[in-house]
Amino acid sequence: MSIRIGILGYGNLSRGVESAIAQNPDMELVAVFTRRNPESLKVKSGVPALNVSELEKYKDKIDVLVLGGGSATDLPAQTPEYVKHFNVVDSFDTHARIPEHFENVDKAAKAAGKVGIISVGWDPGMFSLLRMISTSVLPEGENYTFWGKGVSQGHSDAIRRIKGVKDARQYTIPVEEAVNRVRKGENPTLTTREKHTRECFVVVEEGADKAAIESEIVNMPNYFSDYDTTVHFISAEEMERDHKGLPHGGFVLRSGVTGFDKENKHIIEYSLKLDSNPEFTGSVIAAYARAAYKLSKEGVSGCKSVFDIAPAYLSPLSGEELRRTML
Amino acid sequence: MSIRIGILGYGNLSRGVESAIAQNPDMELVAVFTRRNPESLKVKSGVPALNVSELEKYKDKIDVLVLGGGSATDLPAQTPEYVKHFNVVDSFDTHARIPEHFENVDKAAKAAGKVGIISVGWDPGMFSLLRMISTSVLPEGENYTFWGKGVSQGHSDAIRRIKGVKDARQYTIPVEEAVNRVRKGENPTLTTREKHTRECFVVVEEGADKAAIESEIVNMPNYFSDYDTTVHFISAEEMERDHKGLPHGGFVLRSGVTGFDKENKHIIEYSLKLDSNPEFTGSVIAAYARAAYKLSKEGVSGCKSVFDIAPAYLSPLSGEELRRTML
Repeated sequence: MSIRIGILGYGNLSRGVESAIAQNPDMELVAVFTRRNPESLKVKSGVPALNVSELEKYKDKIDVLVLGGGSATDLPAQTPEYVKHFNVVDSFDTHARIPEHFENVDKAAKAAGKVGIISVGWDPGMFSLLRMISTSVLPEGENYTFWGKGVSQGHSDAIRRIKGVKDARQYTIPVEEAVNRVRKGENPTLTTREKHTRECFVVVEEGADKAAIESEIVNMPNYFSDYDTTVHFISAEEMERDHKGLPHGGFVLRSGVTGFDKENKHIIEYSLKLDSNPEFTGSVIAAYARAAYKLSKEGVSGCKSVFDIAPAYLSPLSGEELRRTML
Repeated sequence: MSIRIGILGYGNLSRGVESAIAQNPDMELVAVFTRRNPESLKVKSGVPALNVSELEKYKDKIDVLVLGGGSATDLPAQTPEYVKHFNVVDSFDTHARIPEHFENVDKAAKAAGKVGIISVGWDPGMFSLLRMISTSVLPEGENYTFWGKGVSQGHSDAIRRIKGVKDARQYTIPVEEAVNRVRKGENPTLTTREKHTRECFVVVEEGADKAAIESEIVNMPNYFSDYDTTVHFISAEEMERDHKGLPHGGFVLRSGVTGFDKENKHIIEYSLKLDSNPEFTGSVIAAYARAAYKLSKEGVSGCKSVFDIAPAYLSPLSGEELRRTML
């Protein structure tokens, strides 16, 4: 019997989850739920698109509901709400608000006897897991996280909001020299500017003041002013031809020492090179949806993060098969 | 209150565990137990060295017993035996016999109400974990494991058994071209010879037949005949000066695809660069000893592998602290 999944929302991430489910024979997508007019959605895999108001009829027809919404306003309200009726997985990624989100989801999930897994993806998610495990193994050392090369959706959006800008794509790029110093075990102290650069490709309206737009980008606080930023003005055709994808990736490094005299260095590195950020994130979510299903079957309830879930729950294989083939 | 650890055996690995415990403020080494005359042991951290026959007096004085013995003959007997009285952690690494070892330890551990964690280290151990998680996240793809550059103790020993050889050190070296092909996402099929080379440094007795020794090494079945092997004859002084350490490391890569048309490639890479193989392995064991302690406190019993343990158990931090600082 398949694990029956529902998805709330149908943006890039939800479509990534949809395609991941199609790769996992033990899972089945039941329906996509939307706050918009469902007739406006063309769901790639052909399952029904339904208005979110239909969800209550699906309480016994869905094992896990994946919440594809955003962290700013959707998930803080949705995850504690829907966990009252469903096992849920979200990708809540506002790091500073995770403790509060966890508490809210935990309370609701325990009261309802459901499982809510939050902050699933690659950062937070896989990167968090690697930071945590590596820090436990090498307690004396430093953690470094680099992102990219890849498209930052938030930074691209920030540029798009500038007057005169028609479209924009922002790439976050790790500074190779900084990465290499960490890989060598130098344990450098790195400023924001020393770790990443930002490269922007911008399509402007006819007659727009490019110099003013460039200045507004590179000086934008929080987003760009702490970085070395390059701006390229390109045509709409070039944007469509060269910047269509959503690649991303990055590295988590732990550089630590062991020995009675701290004489031995060790570098643990985890790296991701992703052609499609939303499809990879969706693949991680699919694996944790399996975990939510298995945990719920065992009678577990409450909020969980990637730290709280034994890795075997992510796999369709039995413990015996895993030991025989992967250990 | 500290987690009280005992160590059985005092070889390289046990000394690695000893130095790791010294780096973890929530742990305390109680004693080292040996089958040899304990007076012959000089324990670095100054704790008592005791004969193994004393162990039964320590049933209530030790929370976790780390078994530092070898996989060939020690651990298959010791782990199921000692788990009758202690929570134990071992580094059993004969991959083919893991299922059988697991069953034996599980039966004894459940009967005794103790926790036995087996096959802890980096391969099996961290590498297994990464293979398993990455395969669950990207179900369509290939796994690749490369070892080195590093000293293989087993291969060094095999050379030392050759007549006329006084000392030997064997380095396993991943073939860079093969690693790069995997990193590019080519998903190549690689033979044993294409993945690793072997480099040997050998000190011979005076008058030994070097040509015969070299031929015996490179043609040795199982160990060398399937590899391109280089042999260097060096002096005892050079061995002492240049080959004293036990560095190791390696890479686990998962190369997979996502998308309805499998159009997007993803590479997950986990790599280790270790100055000291036994100290890093000992550090992993220390973290899992903490997990054994916590699981046992919760009333859990039975055999566990790295697949069965939620990562949070490895850390001295609370769930709340982990979410605030690492997620």
